[in-house]
Amino acid sequence: MISPFTWVNGKATDSLAVSDRGLQYGDGVWETIAIKQGQAVQLAAHLFRLKRGLTALAIEGVDEALLKQEISQYIAQCVTSPSSGAAAVLKVIITRGSGGRGYSPLGCHTPTRILSLHPWPDYPDSYSREGVDITLCETRLSHNPQLAGFKHLNRLEQVLARAEVGSDFQEGLVRDYDDHIIEATMSNVFVVKDSQTVITPDLKNCGIEGIARSCIIDCLGEMGIEVKIGAVSLTEIEQAEGLFLSNSVMKIWPVRKFRDIGYQITDSIKELQKRIAVIL
Amino acid sequence: MISPFTWVNGKATDSLAVSDRGLQYGDGVWETIAIKQGQAVQLAAHLFRLKRGLTALAIEGVDEALLKQEISQYIAQCVTSPSSGAAAVLKVIITRGSGGRGYSPLGCHTPTRILSLHPWPDYPDSYSREGVDITLCETRLSHNPQLAGFKHLNRLEQVLARAEVGSDFQEGLVRDYDDHIIEATMSNVFVVKDSQTVITPDLKNCGIEGIARSCIIDCLGEMGIEVKIGAVSLTEIEQAEGLFLSNSVMKIWPVRKFRDIGYQITDSIKELQKRIAVIL
Repeated sequence: MISPFTWVNGKATDSLAVSDRGLQYGDGVWETIAIKQGQAVQLAAHLFRLKRGLTALAIEGVDEALLKQEISQYIAQCVTSPSSGAAAVLKVIITRGSGGRGYSPLGCHTPTRILSLHPWPDYPDSYSREGVDITLCETRLSHNPQLAGFKHLNRLEQVLARAEVGSDFQEGLVRDYDDHIIEATMSNVFVVKDSQTVITPDLKNCGIEGIARSCIIDCLGEMGIEVKIGAVSLTEIEQAEGLFLSNSVMKIWPVRKFRDIGYQITDSIKELQKRIAVIL
Repeated sequence: MISPFTWVNGKATDSLAVSDRGLQYGDGVWETIAIKQGQAVQLAAHLFRLKRGLTALAIEGVDEALLKQEISQYIAQCVTSPSSGAAAVLKVIITRGSGGRGYSPLGCHTPTRILSLHPWPDYPDSYSREGVDITLCETRLSHNPQLAGFKHLNRLEQVLARAEVGSDFQEGLVRDYDDHIIEATMSNVFVVKDSQTVITPDLKNCGIEGIARSCIIDCLGEMGIEVKIGAVSLTEIEQAEGLFLSNSVMKIWPVRKFRDIGYQITDSIKELQKRIAVIL
């Protein structure tokens, strides 16, 4: 189903200039987009976040219409038999390109566009249905409001945190240095306080504002459940009625167990999963 | 003098696999090493810091002896007429390589070695002799003790800070979110308090422990000047008798002006420059 093609600036190639600032400094942004039945799911939302990142990093010269067209062409050429319904994951990376002098991006005006296709991860169905077991990572997320919310290429904290999640666990919660829970290594966190209230961490200082997270906040609103965005402590995690994780590819994984605490898959989580299945 | 060669894993090529985690996550470390008369200056110290970074990121499989040998071969082949004394800058990047699954580095055991050569920057002599004018950056450095001290590939904060330093200034001071001065965008900072005392910022939470910085601390000790490593406030910068910046390539730049404050190039700075010229 998947061609091993990678496109760099519209051309099929597996390689990139060593001088690219994406490698040299992590000077770029990216998105991971689900491809289903030949369609990029929530593409507009992903491109909106991408643009937000480009603005934050002052990376100019990305033609949004061209990028959208290129993504369509890429999917048409690289994802075969879309009607089969088989899914894949598209990764879009935009770097500032090669150039500048040392750290200075001055004079660097030709961003690099990288599209690559990856197999749909083979997560067992049980993760969504029965829930997952999670751990707590020792790696912390540092505060930097300038870089918070979007997906940039500086991801060492996530790499270090993920390396802590052994094979006994499917995910790991990550805290900032103020001991607040921010997210899990590759997903956002939602705490079901009671049947009326869900809390999800404030991401103004660190963390990624997931596309799935936004969809979930909207859905919960439609279900009449209040979503509070604020500080989440370990105690709130431990005292929660339910807990779930989200990202664009895994959608919603209820948490079954954290430490010695077992969580219910509440009716609201089940209802949310049904609604999200239509959107993501 | 300089061949445009870049070596990736010992082979001359300008390109790298898109799948390399150096690009995908900034999952790697690097060093910038001065090459003079065919010799890598302070190579042992650079390799020591590189190793420290590899250990912090748990990147395994780098054969240190092989890397050292490769650097020698690279210099012999790519830096022509070493006897001319012309200088260049060698950049060594080690990434975790391609592989793993998402953020997880599990199963990724073949690091990528990248060597590239760059022209010696054409800084005017006056920067060392008469000093430089500096500004204060608004971009802050976030605290992360796990990633502090060494040169990893997550350098967006430096890119954003450097972009603030306009053409009227040669460098910019960068603070953390506690308002402490940590470093300048590409150099370490030293505050000459009086003829007996120099202060340089504590880098346990953020910043890079420069090789030049270590050499300077040693030299100042030999000169009978006490070096205090601790928190440096903006007030201390403003009330300093002298101020200077350092890195392996620029060596020591005295600061001539910051805001409306003019600084002396003290006798101790001049003496230090003489001593450092022999080492760097």
